[in-house]
Amino acid sequence: MNGIVFLIQSRDQKGLVARISTFFYERGFNILNCQQYTDTIESRYFMRVMLDPSTLSTSRQDLEMDFTEFAHQFEMKWSVHYPDVLQRVAIMVTKASHCLYDLLLRQREGELECTIPVIISNHTDLRHVADQFHIPFVHFPISAETKSMQESKLLALLKEHDIDLIVLARYMQVLSSSFIESFGYGIINIHHAFLPAFQGANPYRRAWERGVKMIGATAHYATSDLDEGPIIDQDVERVTHESLPEELSRIGRDIERIVLARAVKSHLEHRVIVNGRRTILFT
Amino acid sequence: MNGIVFLIQSRDQKGLVARISTFFYERGFNILNCQQYTDTIESRYFMRVMLDPSTLSTSRQDLEMDFTEFAHQFEMKWSVHYPDVLQRVAIMVTKASHCLYDLLLRQREGELECTIPVIISNHTDLRHVADQFHIPFVHFPISAETKSMQESKLLALLKEHDIDLIVLARYMQVLSSSFIESFGYGIINIHHAFLPAFQGANPYRRAWERGVKMIGATAHYATSDLDEGPIIDQDVERVTHESLPEELSRIGRDIERIVLARAVKSHLEHRVIVNGRRTILFT
Amino acid sequence: MNGIVFLIQSRDQKGLVARISTFFYERGFNILNCQQYTDTIESRYFMRVMLDPSTLSTSRQDLEMDFTEFAHQFEMKWSVHYPDVLQRVAIMVTKASHCLYDLLLRQREGELECTIPVIISNHTDLRHVADQFHIPFVHFPISAETKSMQESKLLALLKEHDIDLIVLARYMQVLSSSFIESFGYGIINIHHAFLPAFQGANPYRRAWERGVKMIGATAHYATSDLDEGPIIDQDVERVTHESLPEELSRIGRDIERIVLARAVKSHLEHRVIVNGRRTILFT
Amino acid sequence: MNGIVFLIQSRDQKGLVARISTFFYERGFNILNCQQYTDTIESRYFMRVMLDPSTLSTSRQDLEMDFTEFAHQFEMKWSVHYPDVLQRVAIMVTKASHCLYDLLLRQREGELECTIPVIISNHTDLRHVADQFHIPFVHFPISAETKSMQESKLLALLKEHDIDLIVLARYMQVLSSSFIESFGYGIINIHHAFLPAFQGANPYRRAWERGVKMIGATAHYATSDLDEGPIIDQDVERVTHESLPEELSRIGRDIERIVLARAVKSHLEHRVIVNGRRTILFT
Repeated sequence: MNGIVFLIQSRDQKGLVARISTFFYERGFNILNCQQYTDTIESRYFMRVMLDPSTLSTSRQDLEMDFTEFAHQFEMKWSVHYPDVLQRVAIMVTKASHCLYDLLLRQREGELECTIPVIISNHTDLRHVADQFHIPFVHFPISAETKSMQESKLLALLKEHDIDLIVLARYMQVLSSSFIESFGYGIINIHHAFLPAFQGANPYRRAWERGVKMIGATAHYATSDLDEGPIIDQDVERVTHESLPEELSRIGRDIERIVLARAVKSHLEHRVIVNGRRTILFT
Repeated sequence: MNGIVFLIQSRDQKGLVARISTFFYERGFNILNCQQYTDTIESRYFMRVMLDPSTLSTSRQDLEMDFTEFAHQFEMKWSVHYPDVLQRVAIMVTKASHCLYDLLLRQREGELECTIPVIISNHTDLRHVADQFHIPFVHFPISAETKSMQESKLLALLKEHDIDLIVLARYMQVLSSSFIESFGYGIINIHHAFLPAFQGANPYRRAWERGVKMIGATAHYATSDLDEGPIIDQDVERVTHESLPEELSRIGRDIERIVLARAVKSHLEHRVIVNGRRTILFT
Repeated sequence: MNGIVFLIQSRDQKGLVARISTFFYERGFNILNCQQYTDTIESRYFMRVMLDPSTLSTSRQDLEMDFTEFAHQFEMKWSVHYPDVLQRVAIMVTKASHCLYDLLLRQREGELECTIPVIISNHTDLRHVADQFHIPFVHFPISAETKSMQESKLLALLKEHDIDLIVLARYMQVLSSSFIESFGYGIINIHHAFLPAFQGANPYRRAWERGVKMIGATAHYATSDLDEGPIIDQDVERVTHESLPEELSRIGRDIERIVLARAVKSHLEHRVIVNGRRTILFT
Repeated sequence: MNGIVFLIQSRDQKGLVARISTFFYERGFNILNCQQYTDTIESRYFMRVMLDPSTLSTSRQDLEMDFTEFAHQFEMKWSVHYPDVLQRVAIMVTKASHCLYDLLLRQREGELECTIPVIISNHTDLRHVADQFHIPFVHFPISAETKSMQESKLLALLKEHDIDLIVLARYMQVLSSSFIESFGYGIINIHHAFLPAFQGANPYRRAWERGVKMIGATAHYATSDLDEGPIIDQDVERVTHESLPEELSRIGRDIERIVLARAVKSHLEHRVIVNGRRTILFT
């Protein structure tokens, strides 16, 4: 069930549930769902409220002005999301097709509510997948020399397509800190290891060398610190001494697919709030 | 963190979060945690609120009288639980020691907040375990002929010990419907299969015969319908064609231990509300 | 690594490993892998041997004649499979696309070594998927009245395409016993529940009604007894009281996909031997 | 089912299965189980053979002399283990009781076939557990100054008790390289993290700081490189943003218990062969 979602955070203080829920109650809203979390260490309060959109009795603008004023007295940070405003997602890939196919199929099946106006790659290998799904494919080769210039063009392209979220679906180029900061919205990356183990390149080979008995994947927000961004979801699968790196890589594809899809779904449903190096994930 | 817990349910109606949270806010309470669930099919509302006990400014009796009046207008069913009132748990066993040991150790480690004033068994095999932990052990042999009489005595014993919760930790006798209804509080049973598969006797043997690739265990509230009570928790473990019934039984012991402990912990922390044949489990 | 695979079974008797491995050693073979299992209850022996194909020094026909003679003295049942002989798989579907897409993508990625010469459906909804992958799509509507006639035509079609394996990838028609017996090779079905729980129709709704805390899927060989065939693989996922039947169905899609793909892969790699109601699965 | 176990390794060469199995066949042995693994990268062959002890027709000494000669021609490294020779295990602990209790209970239930002649600790907190199970408890306080001297005494104690395996069941002192090398047999440690993530101290706190969504535990052979020894088993459990370090530590206890028990069981059943930095685990 979809609703109007408010994500709210502030310093912890008495009466927040009562005050916030009363705000909505007095305006005739039916609260479909309400989740909260208090970070007792940082003394910080987080809330996700989902309202029945059919009980909105004013304009959206009025609601937002009203809430702005209300939020001011508690020094809240907040955002509001309407169910009929689909987010626009750009998928960036290199050569591996499994995550790309998975995201496209889930979007088609209605599991990921978003539009995907563009697929971007530093190679052309996956153009046929974009074609299969009738989505524009943009080839953006990037080398060390051209990185800065190409990233500027990339930003322009993302702006032109009005992109809300970038999903790095096994995109094997490292984006520059300045690009990541410029984009400023959300970038979700899938790392093919159970972070913080095996940060960086070739995690499956290094997992094999270390002789681990489980391998994993991690979906996280990209930050300027490579593989250090807030983790959204992780999962693992059991492996044995018989699994060579190639086999680990094959087993890993299923984990990557599922972990990335779950993270993107949580983000699109406004279930994730970043809290420093950690995420709060309302399930 | 422990607090005063209110479990509340009523038919769904607008403004419940606001009204309930305001009730507590107006009385000076700090809400530590607040979870809710709306059963949209039955149109029924469920809430678990945890309050900071240091913010209770009246007597418990006054709080309860106050809330009784408040709850009346919404036709709420509710209960309140104070952190300093430890529940009293009777553990019933037959011959298998693994769940018994596990519960006793977790209670000692502070993971299960309760007292265990008595261990009851239809055999004497586990008396030494009760002795190891200095807990009274009562031998209650039950046969088809003596069942009715023995169950009456059992009820008296439970009453004498002021028992709040019975845990059937691999107790292999079937309790009569009338006993279960007479006790009327909570009885948690561990069934050594992934219900509803393999209800009844010898689930590991039948799992082996059927050639399943995973076995499981299920903790549920006992009802007069054998193995049909509301499920609190379940888990499974992978097995192979090499696992004979005895091996399944050994693997199963770990699943039983963990599933039963989790269910008992959830119950003791007032995280479970029975909703028809299902449970709501606030995590 | 692919090799020539022998699957062997016989009544248990002393010296089988030695005799069989010596057979291959004397003919110059390098054994890449050798797994065995003794069913001590039925006193039956099972073996999977994988040979390095580059060490085959005779014709395949000579090898098979030779082994026939050798096997005779031990009353073995056996089969041999060469890595360059791809199995031919027919996929049967109804309306749900997730398993179909998954199998096609895995086949394209080289994870499932087989050819897929035809996709068969009792509806036309998934014709576009077959088209996307350039695979012939045959529409085979079946009603109670036409079942017998249509199944005869179906058998003819399968024969024409020289099909080795039928995969029922969420095919929602029940095949007749006579069809299943006529085909006589392998038919793998995915059931959207953790068998033997929730056999038959609407398993996700029934799982919800029962209030289970995990849902599952089961891949098994189809037999004339519906949902009673030997299980190849199963898996489960945790769910909560918040998951309505539609949500269970969505969560279940991922389990179905993965369980079916694993079972088909095991079958294609000749890792499965049926042993009565159970399967032996060499991993 | 227990048998005489041979663990064998050599450089890979043609005919090893045939030659080894024939060796046993010719001496009248019934092979109960035979598993092998070829490390194709290092070109190394590993085998675990389990023989029916009732088919041993010579003295053990003769069998071993015979096999020594046989093994010589293939340059095999090997060991043989008889089911009636129980291994002698010393458990070392500090203050946490959960792994200690778990190991003792499993040994009592017959799941871990070994004797436990001594429990050693650098503190006295767990003396009562040793007392409960009537096992000698030795207090061995170790400080930086006394380490070298105390470890010498410890070695003498282990020798006196004829110890085959040391289990570090949450023993919080770092053993010196020279001690580990002197002992020279097996030392199994449980690390309370999913190695190689969070090596070293305070892994649960660091897991919380990093915001991981799963925590784990790792059982490995201790080597002079802290937390770098060959991994025997690992497992993980899902956690949420609500889990503070103390809660992670509580959840982790169950993972530690189970992972350590599985690793010790595999070792006692001679299912583990160390292969460089990795282990081969015959299941």
